[in-house]
Amino acid sequence: MPTISKKGHLMPESPIRKLVPYAEQAVKEGKSIYHLNIGQPDIKTPEIALEAVKNNDVEILSYSRSQGSETYRIKLTAYYKKHNINVSHEDIIVTVGASEALLFLFSSIIDPGDEVIISEPFYANYIAFSTATGVNVVPAICNIDDNFALPSIETFEKLITPKTRAILICNPGNPTGYLYSEEEIKQLGAIAKKHDLFLIADEVYREFVYDGNKHFSVMELEDLEEHTIIIDSVSKRYSMCGARIGCLVSKNKIVMQTVLKYAQARLSPPTYAQIASEAALDTPQSYFDDVIIEYVERRDTLITELQKIEGIKIAKPKGAFYCMVELPIKNSDNFAQWLLEDFDVDGETVMVAPAGGFYSTPGIGLNQIRIAYVLNKESLIKAVNILKEALKVYKD
Amino acid sequence: MPTISKKGHLMPESPIRKLVPYAEQAVKEGKSIYHLNIGQPDIKTPEIALEAVKNNDVEILSYSRSQGSETYRIKLTAYYKKHNINVSHEDIIVTVGASEALLFLFSSIIDPGDEVIISEPFYANYIAFSTATGVNVVPAICNIDDNFALPSIETFEKLITPKTRAILICNPGNPTGYLYSEEEIKQLGAIAKKHDLFLIADEVYREFVYDGNKHFSVMELEDLEEHTIIIDSVSKRYSMCGARIGCLVSKNKIVMQTVLKYAQARLSPPTYAQIASEAALDTPQSYFDDVIIEYVERRDTLITELQKIEGIKIAKPKGAFYCMVELPIKNSDNFAQWLLEDFDVDGETVMVAPAGGFYSTPGIGLNQIRIAYVLNKESLIKAVNILKEALKVYKD
Repeated sequence: MPTISKKGHLMPESPIRKLVPYAEQAVKEGKSIYHLNIGQPDIKTPEIALEAVKNNDVEILSYSRSQGSETYRIKLTAYYKKHNINVSHEDIIVTVGASEALLFLFSSIIDPGDEVIISEPFYANYIAFSTATGVNVVPAICNIDDNFALPSIETFEKLITPKTRAILICNPGNPTGYLYSEEEIKQLGAIAKKHDLFLIADEVYREFVYDGNKHFSVMELEDLEEHTIIIDSVSKRYSMCGARIGCLVSKNKIVMQTVLKYAQARLSPPTYAQIASEAALDTPQSYFDDVIIEYVERRDTLITELQKIEGIKIAKPKGAFYCMVELPIKNSDNFAQWLLEDFDVDGETVMVAPAGGFYSTPGIGLNQIRIAYVLNKESLIKAVNILKEALKVYKD
Repeated sequence: MPTISKKGHLMPESPIRKLVPYAEQAVKEGKSIYHLNIGQPDIKTPEIALEAVKNNDVEILSYSRSQGSETYRIKLTAYYKKHNINVSHEDIIVTVGASEALLFLFSSIIDPGDEVIISEPFYANYIAFSTATGVNVVPAICNIDDNFALPSIETFEKLITPKTRAILICNPGNPTGYLYSEEEIKQLGAIAKKHDLFLIADEVYREFVYDGNKHFSVMELEDLEEHTIIIDSVSKRYSMCGARIGCLVSKNKIVMQTVLKYAQARLSPPTYAQIASEAALDTPQSYFDDVIIEYVERRDTLITELQKIEGIKIAKPKGAFYCMVELPIKNSDNFAQWLLEDFDVDGETVMVAPAGGFYSTPGIGLNQIRIAYVLNKESLIKAVNILKEALKVYKD
């Protein structure tokens, strides 16, 4: 029997996915589950995007351009301009989600065995994309006690080796909810310039910024046009995760030409989803205002409720819709599984994301979980109460 | 300034893409172009698929499952059964086009530096996927004089080394139009079994088989369940290239588990396109009957017209919608460019695909072109006449 590749063996499985069979079994046994584990918003997709697809006049569903539909890319430049990012449509390549953008980018700028520094904890799939492309992840470890702020410049620079090719941040952050300040972004820019590194920012949560804070993009940095690259997506912005439309934005022509070669090999991004994404750009500001109000209320509700639990530590999120929590337990993988298998309050339990998968450093974050506040307030209150009751009886 | 990766430098650019600026310039100068260069059918997408998308009731465009929607995969098993391929929905992973299926598969079963044997000439993007994954392509060279039939078993086995992990064919073939006989598939199966190799068949043109021939799939082979893998797509079958829905089919559980890890990292295939693809499975047989009649007429028209040109050699296609032609010239890259830049008949010219990009072996196929007969008969007659006139005056 022929065998799979060594690389295939190394591909990680998400720790959340490992819980899925236990969740399915719990449902079979009649339990209800509050899903605090996933980043799938319950917010409705803007009507204007849904309608555009329903009213499409496609007769031959043909390939679009490999770099994405030109009308969509041109319209995107106006969106970016509103966010103080000045780009031409030629600085944009439409991708199949932010995932594809990152996969093509890693292949384009980092050779197997070379290194990317990523602020840790980070989105678990960054490890998957690194493994898939043979790239080594060097973590810049951030701490829950600092709300996951960037480590000092000195600490950061110590991580740079001759093999370092890029720095990757997620801003605002999944799983931390951390929003980088303009000052921090400028510091990262200075490091990238000094050491001739690419500075990549996953900004898919750009709109989800709270408490009057302002998002500052890496592409607002001056004199760093050759270094900075944005990874973006419509998934969270318009609650359109199933569209699978993202993009890569950079003014570095050679990077764009190289990414385009990968994009050409896979022919084009999906057509219907581009129709939806282009229409979504006309979503009224009131939609976002309502969404932000909703998320702030959810976050505040979540934190108020979490604070009723003894012995826990909360990193208050300034953006995105995740909250990292340290629990008085030893291993959140076991705890998350136990919640599904062995615990309920009146037939209800919760599913959380164990934080181990957000760290590449072994042994760190094992007592942390990530909570996605993508449920309504009532459900959040009930869910956190279940967590509280669970911690009263749970033994590691 | 930070630089791109060595791997990024190595990514090939398609020889057809290189012609695009010349085509754009020709159009600017007022020329009309008959596009014989692309595999984008002019056939209408089945109404049933278009309507399903128009009538969709999605309110939150959420992620689907990473392996693809379960209802679609279950319905696909009935489609495969009709084609004598007995699989369960668990043997199917829905991908973003056949491209993604091949990319994930190469990563799952072949390590960088290991080898895949591909019957040559082959679909140009196979080289791109190989480069992207670090896989070395070993060509099994087929000859236009044999209509691109498989080389002898002896020749084939000489290509196998300790690094060989898989054999890849496209059946019916792009760019050759060659349809492998049941006997040839069985021979390949025997080689795969003897040498413990995966046998991968790109069967995206399965329906496009002419002259009463029957398509025989690698998954119809007995006792080779662990070895055989199908790469598939809705793009050509339903003229739905812009959907970007393909799939990977195999009964090898470890391969499927590994491919799924890659699929999970990119979250899910596009939702609207899965709605269209699932509905397309109910396309009536009459649609395909009409399409086949149309393509056979086009192929016959094309060949009749090509035979009027002196000094050319034609590989008569038994399937797909491509035809490889050897011309009395030295370099078809130059010829194709010249057709766009310096030639026209009454303001009209043709764009063809130079065949060099379909060969990994340097220097082979440079006097060949691939013609895609995706135009109506009248256009084909005019286009071939332009080719005929061009060859009268062209000097290498």
